[in-house]
Amino acid sequence: MSQNTDIKISAIRGSFLDFISDPFYYPELETVRYINDGLMIVSGGIIQELDTYDKLKYKYSEIPVTSYPGMLILPGFIDIHIHYPQTEIIASSSTQLLEWLDKYTFPVEGKFHDKNYAQKIASFFLDQLLQNGTTTALVLTTIYPQSVDALFEEAELRNMRIIAGKMLMDRNAPDYLQDTPKTGYQDSKSLIKKWHRKGRLLYAITPRFAITSTSEQLYLAGILKQEFPDVYVHTHLSEQQSEIEKVAQLFPNSRDYLDVYEKFGLVTSKSIFAHCIYLQDSEFDRLSQAGSTIAFCPTSNLFLGSGLFSINKAKSQNNPVKVGLATDVGGGTSFSIFKTMNDAYKISQLQGQNLSSLKAFYLATLGGAISLSLEDKVGNFEVGKEADFVVIDTRVTPLLKLRNARNNPNSLTDIVDELFTLIILGNERAVKATYVGGNLAYEI
Amino acid sequence: MSQNTDIKISAIRGSFLDFISDPFYYPELETVRYINDGLMIVSGGIIQELDTYDKLKYKYSEIPVTSYPGMLILPGFIDIHIHYPQTEIIASSSTQLLEWLDKYTFPVEGKFHDKNYAQKIASFFLDQLLQNGTTTALVLTTIYPQSVDALFEEAELRNMRIIAGKMLMDRNAPDYLQDTPKTGYQDSKSLIKKWHRKGRLLYAITPRFAITSTSEQLYLAGILKQEFPDVYVHTHLSEQQSEIEKVAQLFPNSRDYLDVYEKFGLVTSKSIFAHCIYLQDSEFDRLSQAGSTIAFCPTSNLFLGSGLFSINKAKSQNNPVKVGLATDVGGGTSFSIFKTMNDAYKISQLQGQNLSSLKAFYLATLGGAISLSLEDKVGNFEVGKEADFVVIDTRVTPLLKLRNARNNPNSLTDIVDELFTLIILGNERAVKATYVGGNLAYEI
Repeated sequence: MSQNTDIKISAIRGSFLDFISDPFYYPELETVRYINDGLMIVSGGIIQELDTYDKLKYKYSEIPVTSYPGMLILPGFIDIHIHYPQTEIIASSSTQLLEWLDKYTFPVEGKFHDKNYAQKIASFFLDQLLQNGTTTALVLTTIYPQSVDALFEEAELRNMRIIAGKMLMDRNAPDYLQDTPKTGYQDSKSLIKKWHRKGRLLYAITPRFAITSTSEQLYLAGILKQEFPDVYVHTHLSEQQSEIEKVAQLFPNSRDYLDVYEKFGLVTSKSIFAHCIYLQDSEFDRLSQAGSTIAFCPTSNLFLGSGLFSINKAKSQNNPVKVGLATDVGGGTSFSIFKTMNDAYKISQLQGQNLSSLKAFYLATLGGAISLSLEDKVGNFEVGKEADFVVIDTRVTPLLKLRNARNNPNSLTDIVDELFTLIILGNERAVKATYVGGNLAYEI
Repeated sequence: MSQNTDIKISAIRGSFLDFISDPFYYPELETVRYINDGLMIVSGGIIQELDTYDKLKYKYSEIPVTSYPGMLILPGFIDIHIHYPQTEIIASSSTQLLEWLDKYTFPVEGKFHDKNYAQKIASFFLDQLLQNGTTTALVLTTIYPQSVDALFEEAELRNMRIIAGKMLMDRNAPDYLQDTPKTGYQDSKSLIKKWHRKGRLLYAITPRFAITSTSEQLYLAGILKQEFPDVYVHTHLSEQQSEIEKVAQLFPNSRDYLDVYEKFGLVTSKSIFAHCIYLQDSEFDRLSQAGSTIAFCPTSNLFLGSGLFSINKAKSQNNPVKVGLATDVGGGTSFSIFKTMNDAYKISQLQGQNLSSLKAFYLATLGGAISLSLEDKVGNFEVGKEADFVVIDTRVTPLLKLRNARNNPNSLTDIVDELFTLIILGNERAVKATYVGGNLAYEI
């Protein structure tokens, strides 16, 4: 074959697993593609071909192969709601959400006025994502534009698919953490022009939540979304009862919490709402109709005592809402998608719903991509997509080794079981390597 | 000072933390003893002295010191309910308890008929405990006496404080897993004579639960407890609704689940009941009066969707019940006491109860010892107790290092915060070394 010598071509060999459809709606084993001994050809950061090693080995015999024998290769994980400024306050004990914000979150966010500090944490944060196999994330920042710059600059260095935006917050926060409707609008606009679609970076208009934005600010956020319809909207919705009550007081003319955002044109097919634990049926229906996304944040919902999100209700047959998984660090307790799935499983169990390993891994890969309208770019190993992937050792600890000894790598059923052991027993050490755009970005 | 040269004396230096009373009932910071730079003298496996390094350094200047600078030294953890035969089926996905028993537990327990297999798993299991800093455990086995022998033999090799007993099960289980009331009684009696108080080993009469034992078997278990009042009783109680309904059907003359055990004299001050999620008030009261113990199994209760145990109810002022922490592997999802505390915290949060780090660590140390009537032997660093302890690195991962960078090791408040980060972010890698009876039993 002829090769363009300017474009880097590489070949990865291992056991590949990805999704081709949604296991919430189709027979599970039919939604997954598994190639026990596969070869993936990456050209210029894009997946050029994936098939069995036997089928491709002669065709690409000139290309040196990076082999991961016995390793499972999955699409890079997608974390659709995470606060990078809260990295340093993860695992801070508190009673509930609003107290937690006052006591830990606001003070630490104040530190991001300092660009150097922001850069240091952004760098650490993105490395944590990579160490946990996460290659795409929708990230919250602070009100300071320089905190957004810091994150995007570090993400650009790593060629990661990061969506983020300046936090909008003009009330119910300390003075030093407030913008105004006008500065919030202007700063966001400048940042959109600077960063949206620069390389792999994307922008999200990010009012923190209805409690910390006036109607005027939400109105201008809606205007911004009209001016830049391609950007995302990212906020919180219905996390705790006390929050919902406060929103009702602040917006007495709104029929429910979602209505606050709807009134300002913020409920769109590129809108992501974190939590959504206490939605009314009508709110689920309207999210479904708008094509909006729910970010399910299991470790956070347990840690802050928020409650039990019903994934089966959101992923219903009649009014399906897009759902992705999210760590929600620092309300969340781990950067690890495995631990996030672990708590998602437990939350489902408490509601008599059994979340299968395939459903969980779908949410963190193709489901996450769809929830961010990125399914044409990432989420599985379709030819033409960006080559973000993670190399997993399902036998990394003595316990996993013992537990998985009986599993046969030729059996899809066994691999499904092995994925479940990752959810329950896995940690960041199971991630042997993370590739971003075809390049090795992290190796243990 | 004069030394008996036959007795091994050793000195350990580090930051020591233990409990002197119960933080559920006393002001928290007063229940804990913390010595930032401490020296512990161990003689013949027993704690001889503990004080600041400065105070003791001249007195024991002849003894070589093992130093753990910057490390936290805690009493060995106590796990009061764990199934060693389920080690290999940890992380097996299922809907609920009774299905889980049929599908995974019973088949694997059948393998313990083979003594060699039992020995292999017992060895692996005890090493897992040590790697997680657990030095004392109340362990379930199978109906096969050889599975009890295997565990005790391996525990004896490691000089660990293990309490265990042959499982009694004469109905509602596969044939190969059933004993009879008579063989169950006789085998238990032989094992008591063979193992109870041999070295550090102790025996527990262990009917699995009311569903799998006939009245005749429970009656004989009660007789055995009368004959050997010093041994323990260990079983399950009120884990899931379907289980409780089945017990009510099987014992129509019992007024509630606990009453089944009471009728046969099995509710004593050395009885440990796992789970106790759905107890009536009267059952709590009677457990309190009997001085019995509840084993709180958070990871298991979430994994099997059992429900939310209310620790605040059990540890009430008026009718306090003794409570200890338990991993409940393999219904539980981790051998780690940290992860067990993590889920205990989350279960409490969901009920609007904030479980402090001191309360959690109390449950896993002194509280666990009291719950097993072992407070004269283990649980804290009182002079005369057995020197089981664990050396902890609270900054073992990059994230823990960042998170705890601000903490001052001279401040007890900061150390309390640091303990909380272990609960949320810690794993077995934070356990740098585990000592059993003064001897190094595990080192990373």
